[in-house]
Amino acid sequence: MRQAAFQGRPWLEVFRESIELPDGRVVDDFYSVDMQDFGVVAALTDRGQVVVERLYRHGPGRTTWSLPAGFVQEGESPLQATKRELREETGFEAREWTPLGRFVVDGNRGCGWCHCFIARGAHVVGVPTSDDLADVEVSLLEWDRLVELLAAGEISELASAATLGMACIHLGGPGVDSQGRI
Amino acid sequence: MRQAAFQGRPWLEVFRESIELPDGRVVDDFYSVDMQDFGVVAALTDRGQVVVERLYRHGPGRTTWSLPAGFVQEGESPLQATKRELREETGFEAREWTPLGRFVVDGNRGCGWCHCFIARGAHVVGVPTSDDLADVEVSLLEWDRLVELLAAGEISELASAATLGMACIHLGGPGVDSQGRI
Repeated sequence: MRQAAFQGRPWLEVFRESIELPDGRVVDDFYSVDMQDFGVVAALTDRGQVVVERLYRHGPGRTTWSLPAGFVQEGESPLQATKRELREETGFEAREWTPLGRFVVDGNRGCGWCHCFIARGAHVVGVPTSDDLADVEVSLLEWDRLVELLAAGEISELASAATLGMACIHLGGPGVDSQGRI
Repeated sequence: MRQAAFQGRPWLEVFRESIELPDGRVVDDFYSVDMQDFGVVAALTDRGQVVVERLYRHGPGRTTWSLPAGFVQEGESPLQATKRELREETGFEAREWTPLGRFVVDGNRGCGWCHCFIARGAHVVGVPTSDDLADVEVSLLEWDRLVELLAAGEISELASAATLGMACIHLGGPGVDSQGRI
């Protein structure tokens, strides 16, 4: 049974559920959280630079480097939403989009789904039009620079990390040697 | 100001905050969610196989392939917690641990921090001892098989995807050609 426990629409809604485990035990205060789905994109120019943003995010409580991302609105597909967000937030469009998977944000609670994309052929088509413009700084960074920022803890959101990581795997991933070692 | 809005300890707690945006606008119903921090590990054997689990997860509402993961308990560091969870859930220990970063689970709401690790020299030291044993199936998978499972949507949690992705980047990442293209 799934009972509404807290209502904070459209941002989040908490439910209390009674769940039976495989061994028969019942957990009667299992919480799940509904949140909006969103898309994130690693958008690469033809020279392999990545479109990134630097902005304040309240989750980590700091200014961070992020990939362009945004909520899927009513009536949009995740791909449509992510294309729209890329255009609005950065002024870029991209030629070729590939889905990298969709992943639930929290394995226990839910918290919405993150749809990850890689896009090739990113190029400027205009100025950003997002409301949040005032505090979003858009840059093109080399892959190696992104890896440095990751190592330095300057990319602090799981969705950005996951999308960069999925992009790495998509673009070839680590090699395996003749002994089967990675 | 941060006011308690819903209490579901120890699992989650919702707060309502009044936040002033950089342009002076005030959002007076910004929700944030406190959840427990957790650790996740991509544990590799000396032959490059990865220790994985197959289990039911309520977030995605399905049985999924996952990396070993678990909550950081009171008094533990994220590294200690992740070592403990690997041992309890899978019966494996690993020789060499490297942090791959910590990331906030939701960039807006918080939802706790995910601490990602890669471990080398994973080897069996005993049987799993976790309570959840009944429904956790432990396997060793080749990297290429994991990539296939990702592509097939069989790895459905953002934390597992991010940790695999960070492992990919750590292990060498995609190459860059002479024109600077990835």
